[in-house]
Amino acid sequence: MNISHIEHLGIAVKSLDEAIPYYENILGLKCYSIEEVADQKVKTAFFKVGQTKIELLEPTSEDSTIAKFIEKRGEGIHHMAFAIEDGVASALAEVEAKGVRLIDKAPRKGAEGLNIAFLHPKSTCSVLTELCEDPNK
Amino acid sequence: MNISHIEHLGIAVKSLDEAIPYYENILGLKCYSIEEVADQKVKTAFFKVGQTKIELLEPTSEDSTIAKFIEKRGEGIHHMAFAIEDGVASALAEVEAKGVRLIDKAPRKGAEGLNIAFLHPKSTCSVLTELCEDPNK
Repeated sequence: MNISHIEHLGIAVKSLDEAIPYYENILGLKCYSIEEVADQKVKTAFFKVGQTKIELLEPTSEDSTIAKFIEKRGEGIHHMAFAIEDGVASALAEVEAKGVRLIDKAPRKGAEGLNIAFLHPKSTCSVLTELCEDPNK
Repeated sequence: MNISHIEHLGIAVKSLDEAIPYYENILGLKCYSIEEVADQKVKTAFFKVGQTKIELLEPTSEDSTIAKFIEKRGEGIHHMAFAIEDGVASALAEVEAKGVRLIDKAPRKGAEGLNIAFLHPKSTCSVLTELCEDPNK
């Protein structure tokens, strides 16, 4: 697996309306996109910081995994996503062969049209880890 | 404040000896430095991923803030650190004037010789946030 950079950080927030002003007015970043990802029951807001995006995640339903994360642990960093140069499918096969537990057995579509898959935090030193590739690159 | 990129992510782990093999053998990253930061009571291991470093933090004492974090929340991402182009001291003054609560009123020395300061998570949407500058740049 060849990781080029940290593609994004997913940060769980209760309210985009409350969080976006912090990122814009205090940190000086610019929200360039707001997108609803229906199958993950979240509304997302994106900021670019160098090579990496910050993806704020607001739950749109009480049974969203983000809602459950906030209920259990409070707001905060939810996951770390790596950009994979040589493809997510081959990276999944490689790490599964090394004994890593997968959440997604095959790549699926995520926000911004990326192909994504999650590794289980039991296998990743407790950091929920996402692998991403941009199919248009 | 002008943020150029995410300088590093601090990740709390119980044991560097257990975590480093995951980052090296599964993710294919290379640990390029191990450093003890005595005043923070941690031993750190560094990896480079594009512009960003991953900084693993193992507590060296039970009263380390990292030991308390792990006890309360388990292992995982502990903080996010931004590289500040126009200096940490002026960034602190700017955000304090906007009502942000500071942990460090003035920059201090962190790992790798950086000037650093932490903002309080009460003011940063619950993400413990560090500002960094490299005095040699």
